[in-house]
Amino acid sequence: MPKLWNETIDAHRHAVREAILNTTTELVKAGGLRSVTMSQIAEKTGIGRATLYKYFSDVEAVLLAWHERQVTGHLHQMAEVAGQPGTPAERLQAVLEAYADIARQRHGGELATLLHQGEHVSHAEHHLAHMVQALIAEGADSGDLRGDIPPAELAQYCLHALTAAAGLPSVAAVRRLVGVTLNGLRPIP
Amino acid sequence: MPKLWNETIDAHRHAVREAILNTTTELVKAGGLRSVTMSQIAEKTGIGRATLYKYFSDVEAVLLAWHERQVTGHLHQMAEVAGQPGTPAERLQAVLEAYADIARQRHGGELATLLHQGEHVSHAEHHLAHMVQALIAEGADSGDLRGDIPPAELAQYCLHALTAAAGLPSVAAVRRLVGVTLNGLRPIP
Repeated sequence: MPKLWNETIDAHRHAVREAILNTTTELVKAGGLRSVTMSQIAEKTGIGRATLYKYFSDVEAVLLAWHERQVTGHLHQMAEVAGQPGTPAERLQAVLEAYADIARQRHGGELATLLHQGEHVSHAEHHLAHMVQALIAEGADSGDLRGDIPPAELAQYCLHALTAAAGLPSVAAVRRLVGVTLNGLRPIP
Repeated sequence: MPKLWNETIDAHRHAVREAILNTTTELVKAGGLRSVTMSQIAEKTGIGRATLYKYFSDVEAVLLAWHERQVTGHLHQMAEVAGQPGTPAERLQAVLEAYADIARQRHGGELATLLHQGEHVSHAEHHLAHMVQALIAEGADSGDLRGDIPPAELAQYCLHALTAAAGLPSVAAVRRLVGVTLNGLRPIP
């Protein structure tokens, strides 16, 4: 087959896959992880069930692919935030706020636990920890953040502290949590 | 049956149960949660398997009872620490250090996740959060700790931040984590 035809096929497959995952986002938002079914996905995406099963073997496979895309998107979003202009402390604050917002949206339940056990999550957490660690090291060099404790430990402190966002009732409370967490990083007078 | 006899029977049952759970502690320490078997428990406790099954239906039941006893013990330990003399900030530090030490010992794996889903854990976490919250409120009143954020939020911040202890390589690192976490609670100058 000519190369162009293959590319067209690939582009089509990619577009269908993205449409399936976009539908999944809508369904998860509307009814939570457990509410999503293959029939609903097919119907809302506007494809037949047989076609959907050519892309994904079951609803768990769809959710896993969807979650991988979510996590990758979040990581890109935080990398972009980290690259904005500003002092290291300001950029750190922006990254931690983005992370806390994501942590607050996190779904509970067995299915969410299962998705979070995937390798893509530990990979993303590793990546994020490095990003936060680098910003903390920069901030320590400039004297804005404490330099008496290894940046890797401080990064773990930040990311664990911000998991408290999951139980918070408001965006204002999440901002306070980020503020307190950053306060822990201030140099000891 | 006379009352004294019933009391003797009760005391005996309690002693056997405690002995079974003490053996479980040893086995978990030696080989981890998944290594524990009913045969080993019976043998090391010095009772027959038939007797063991009169107390617990399976190894999961033993581990659950063992974990409940562990969690209750930890809670009592922290309550005792919280009641020692000292300023609220000093007592808070002692409680958080005790909690971080416990968090560092926590076992991983599916079985640990299962045990932690038990109601006894959420009950204990609730109790501990209240204990920490009360110390923070006292510290805010005395001006040692920040009073601009609800103590309940600060308690959640502390307990989540300290779950980072699970990945730390040394007791010294755990102490640093507690120090950083407490630093977050200091009043803004």
